[in-house]
Amino acid sequence: MMLKLVSFSAAGRDGFGLVHAAGVADLGARTGFASLRELIAAPQGLEAARRVAAEAPVDVALGDIRYRIPVPDADKIICIGVNYADRNAEYKDGSEAPRYPSMFLRTRGSFAGHGEPLLLPPESPQFDYEGEIVIVIGKGGRRIPQEAALSHIFGLTVCNEGGVRDWMRHAKFNVTQGKNFEKSGSIGPWIVPVEDAGDLADLSLKTWVNGELRQEDTVQRMMFPFAYLISYISSFTELLPGDIIVTGTPTGSGARFDPPRYLVDGDVVRVTVPGVGTLENRVVREMVPA
Amino acid sequence: MMLKLVSFSAAGRDGFGLVHAAGVADLGARTGFASLRELIAAPQGLEAARRVAAEAPVDVALGDIRYRIPVPDADKIICIGVNYADRNAEYKDGSEAPRYPSMFLRTRGSFAGHGEPLLLPPESPQFDYEGEIVIVIGKGGRRIPQEAALSHIFGLTVCNEGGVRDWMRHAKFNVTQGKNFEKSGSIGPWIVPVEDAGDLADLSLKTWVNGELRQEDTVQRMMFPFAYLISYISSFTELLPGDIIVTGTPTGSGARFDPPRYLVDGDVVRVTVPGVGTLENRVVREMVPA
Repeated sequence: MMLKLVSFSAAGRDGFGLVHAAGVADLGARTGFASLRELIAAPQGLEAARRVAAEAPVDVALGDIRYRIPVPDADKIICIGVNYADRNAEYKDGSEAPRYPSMFLRTRGSFAGHGEPLLLPPESPQFDYEGEIVIVIGKGGRRIPQEAALSHIFGLTVCNEGGVRDWMRHAKFNVTQGKNFEKSGSIGPWIVPVEDAGDLADLSLKTWVNGELRQEDTVQRMMFPFAYLISYISSFTELLPGDIIVTGTPTGSGARFDPPRYLVDGDVVRVTVPGVGTLENRVVREMVPA
Repeated sequence: MMLKLVSFSAAGRDGFGLVHAAGVADLGARTGFASLRELIAAPQGLEAARRVAAEAPVDVALGDIRYRIPVPDADKIICIGVNYADRNAEYKDGSEAPRYPSMFLRTRGSFAGHGEPLLLPPESPQFDYEGEIVIVIGKGGRRIPQEAALSHIFGLTVCNEGGVRDWMRHAKFNVTQGKNFEKSGSIGPWIVPVEDAGDLADLSLKTWVNGELRQEDTVQRMMFPFAYLISYISSFTELLPGDIIVTGTPTGSGARFDPPRYLVDGDVVRVTVPGVGTLENRVVREMVPA
């Protein structure tokens, strides 16, 4: 049985649980963990969730929850830049394949949960989408060898690593500003434990805007595969349970069209990773008080 | 009276308090707040701390605490790149003064508290220091106008925004890796509330390595002053109480010498901001199990 672990808000309070055919089971109440991050960090956390899943209690109706990002209190969210061969070619700067991955950190507040609005900020007309596969770290560690790296993955989820293109170029280096607009991306809907997600080598990804397919690729074409990323990232930072690694987007984001096809108010972005889930969000123009 | 607010570990537990002439008062026990971040966020938090300061109780001897970074659970730590005019010239690429500041996020784990070891990683011989003045946000906000920005500062502290130079250039863009080695920088020792720190326009900074002065500058020469930074950063992200803004380093880091003068095992880095405090850390070669 495929476990779908969610963090949610319902009736004005935050919780976490699992989504099954009949509804949502409240894992906070039923396991005693304080958060999904704490459940992920506990050696017996996943087993406790599976016991609840076997009974499939309905504590909250699916229609009564609002999805939060799966680990709302993640210590860090690390995003990989160019990681599919075609994407590197897109830069048309004649550069060789890079030796190391490019990466940046994002704030938790820069992401919305599944079904929540993506905020199109009035500061820019260049609001873009990027479908990505997400690794959620289970067992933490530092200087993890590649051979052991996959055993540090707790599960998988889906991301629209959206951003604001012109603000990514505000500075000579670093895309920080354009990648950290509040609720400019999304993660979810849920985490599927890695054991339930099938063969990692078979993962693939599709992104649609308003039903039109824009991105489609497979992890086999990644320049820096999961095991490399975990090993490399842990060479400088200590990975903690619940840490989020957003593994890069294939070709086909809005900026890559000529002319560019940026998102506008009302657009719907859908990202699917078969065996994991489908993340969908509507773009909403942010209203700013004068 | 100048309040010195600290987060610390003592006798195996974490706490927060204030440092005065006779010792450390435990603000957790005496105010009921759960953390310094929570005290900063509460409208009456500072007043509660001042009441305790007036009585100057000693709950812990100063020698019994280990300093943590002042807000160990800060939502985000935002670091400004080039922000003093000479530093831009140092790049010698003929570029004009930048229109917008360059910035990047750092993890909490990349910083040590005052007096704790700076970890020199075996991965690189290019371990460097950067003395900086730090703003701690009090009242949060989004799209804060420059005219109101200074009222969002809770207090000030000091940073050695250390990093690993060659790893900052691992990728075409983004300095993430080299700026996020575990315990490669430090923040502290304490936060001084802005009301106690004197005139913000008179702030200055000195950095010494082993007693040799390496950096010396004043905020008057910043290209992007505090009010601009708060306004600009809050244009894309929501600033929260306890958020940390590390405002950039003047000329004189190790990489700027010819040949470069990187840090080695046993070096002592000291950064002073008069009216705020002195942050000192010893460089210790990290021992990595084979």
